[in-house]
Amino acid sequence: MRRFVGLLNMLKISQRANKVIASPVRKFLPLMLAAEKRGVKVFKLNVGNPNIAPPPLLLKTIKNYQPLSLDYAPSPGIREHVAAWVLYYKKLKINLKSENIIPTVGGAEAILLSVMAVTDPGDELIVFEPFYASYKGFAAMAGFKLVPVTLRVDNDFALPAAAEIEKKITRKTKAIIVINPNNPTGTVWGKKESQIIIDIANKNNLFVISDETYREIVFEQKPSSILNLPAAKNCAIVVDSASKRFSCPGARIGCIASFNNEIMAAVLKFAMIRLSAPTLEQYGLIPLLKNSTNYTEKITAEYKKRRDAVFNALQKMPGVICQKPQGAFYIIAKLPVDNAENFVKFMLMEFSYNKKTVIVTPAENFYMTPGLGRNEIRIAYVLSVKELKEAMEVLRKGLEKYKAKKQ
Amino acid sequence: MRRFVGLLNMLKISQRANKVIASPVRKFLPLMLAAEKRGVKVFKLNVGNPNIAPPPLLLKTIKNYQPLSLDYAPSPGIREHVAAWVLYYKKLKINLKSENIIPTVGGAEAILLSVMAVTDPGDELIVFEPFYASYKGFAAMAGFKLVPVTLRVDNDFALPAAAEIEKKITRKTKAIIVINPNNPTGTVWGKKESQIIIDIANKNNLFVISDETYREIVFEQKPSSILNLPAAKNCAIVVDSASKRFSCPGARIGCIASFNNEIMAAVLKFAMIRLSAPTLEQYGLIPLLKNSTNYTEKITAEYKKRRDAVFNALQKMPGVICQKPQGAFYIIAKLPVDNAENFVKFMLMEFSYNKKTVIVTPAENFYMTPGLGRNEIRIAYVLSVKELKEAMEVLRKGLEKYKAKKQ
Repeated sequence: MRRFVGLLNMLKISQRANKVIASPVRKFLPLMLAAEKRGVKVFKLNVGNPNIAPPPLLLKTIKNYQPLSLDYAPSPGIREHVAAWVLYYKKLKINLKSENIIPTVGGAEAILLSVMAVTDPGDELIVFEPFYASYKGFAAMAGFKLVPVTLRVDNDFALPAAAEIEKKITRKTKAIIVINPNNPTGTVWGKKESQIIIDIANKNNLFVISDETYREIVFEQKPSSILNLPAAKNCAIVVDSASKRFSCPGARIGCIASFNNEIMAAVLKFAMIRLSAPTLEQYGLIPLLKNSTNYTEKITAEYKKRRDAVFNALQKMPGVICQKPQGAFYIIAKLPVDNAENFVKFMLMEFSYNKKTVIVTPAENFYMTPGLGRNEIRIAYVLSVKELKEAMEVLRKGLEKYKAKKQ
Repeated sequence: MRRFVGLLNMLKISQRANKVIASPVRKFLPLMLAAEKRGVKVFKLNVGNPNIAPPPLLLKTIKNYQPLSLDYAPSPGIREHVAAWVLYYKKLKINLKSENIIPTVGGAEAILLSVMAVTDPGDELIVFEPFYASYKGFAAMAGFKLVPVTLRVDNDFALPAAAEIEKKITRKTKAIIVINPNNPTGTVWGKKESQIIIDIANKNNLFVISDETYREIVFEQKPSSILNLPAAKNCAIVVDSASKRFSCPGARIGCIASFNNEIMAAVLKFAMIRLSAPTLEQYGLIPLLKNSTNYTEKITAEYKKRRDAVFNALQKMPGVICQKPQGAFYIIAKLPVDNAENFVKFMLMEFSYNKKTVIVTPAENFYMTPGLGRNEIRIAYVLSVKELKEAMEVLRKGLEKYKAKKQ
């Protein structure tokens, strides 16, 4: 027995596994469940799971799947599915060939295979903080280092001057990663910002990994891609996903798109190792990719109403600072509290208003630089306008109570 | 323009991408398509894609999916799906709790997350060659080194003495990886061999990653797992898959199972980064996991007939050396040729018999040690007995013709 205990102490998991922090979005789950157990209704504004049904055609197409077999899809994707992506991009005025697109297991796998195609362990990637927290996990998995360029809520998360970004480039830098429209900020960078980033990349021989998961969910402009810029042709790798634009994250279908043939050859080799993306969902998404705008315009109009409801309510809360998001379905709000994590715990453990409370995500983990975002939260507006209005009222009451308690 | 060419030369994909060799199973695809274009029927014995329909209940259950939404599954899996895996393992006399099982995107993701949980870049994993070629790709992706222990077809791919294996252990060794039943050899290691490997692991503080994708497809014994051995409790990580036992590789569902809670915590963190395995297929597999043996016994009986057809035919070919496989649906055959790759090309480019030919996989890429396996092929017996008999006849004629040509 003693010997066995000794062994237990020696058998060690990897450092990369130790490095991964538990998801900031999911770590308050136990507290949330406890609140619900006490009979408190929790408005869930923490997870970016769209609460809108996907187009009925998705499940209908899957249910009409005729073969009796369920074979591997080809590693570079089912031909008709890839052709549907080609058509989808053509409507954005981007003329990709089928060999420029490889379907992936959601946007998540698209990120993993992209970063593996451009980095080796020890390399660096420039990222704008706050950013999608999973990038930290992918960095730990693939062994590269994220180097942050800080954006600030008080400055509308605006892109800093090129010189500020170039200061971060070292001999180990391989790429700049952007997410546009942005999770967690809701910012949308236009042609001007994208051109600045592409110019920096081309000047310094870097790739640009452009995560465009939320492409269609933009409130003040038309959907576009970094691939619309001619200068992006060689350096840009687009990470894409069907999850948000068709409200079907459980389908696990995304893609990597790039005009760079070397990148596509590298991604294809990785894709062969993991064999294939799910067969049924590739079929199911064919008609939606061929004709996407009907649906995406409808949900974008809905998200815009939600954005307005949340933003207007936050604007009226004393001491809260936020910027009007232009896309995706998130907003970052700076709160008049010392520590947003404590506030989130307070909301789940101590507070309720008419037997209701709210769960949001503390923003600190969306940053790399220690201390940043400590008094900020991310709200995912994935409830109806009516519920969001009520949730904002509960949040306002919670903030008041929290401040009173602290004084 | 000149400047642009300069950039093209500088922008480089990662070394890990360069390291990955194209799949040995898929690289002759263009030659095969050309043969088909010439009107030659090609018996496809190269890809391990079961040509047996999955249990009808799988697609039926998926088509009965009731929700209108298609949400993310929880990262640790849909509760009922995980419970079905628990029940499945219970029938193998393995009492796992739900927290000991995490569904993955096929066996492929199970391998990737397992190796990431135990290795850091630069670490070593011991592997028995010949082995499932994708392990090389996962090694390149995750940055570890595979250290081979050689098995030989002339020796029935028997496990070498413990001392032979221990010679390969260095301070950087983190785990031993086994695939049992074996792809590409069809060998099945019993309790004795598994115990030897586990003992080596426990003595040297290594993990054992046990790929049991083909668990049920065994012809001379009962299905089992390394987890049946009490001493495996702490060190073993099982990589599992629904793909072969339910003939549904396109479903992309597998799992990681381990009694080691630290490992499961590490895997869960990785699982959260990639969000979830496909929702519909997790649902679809619930009834099959709960009641698997009806189906698996039927297909195993069929694979056994195929094994016999292929093995008996190979036995009769002059100069061919092979061992009777005891499981999975592969066989390695040493051919009386200098270079199996040239023979495969000959079969596709020059040869046909009654307008028919055969595609098999040269075995060299299943080995690490240079030169090994050069005159060996892997046959996947994924056609009907009737077709296999015909294919073996074509192979025999091809070998004769090839030898005559060489003389």
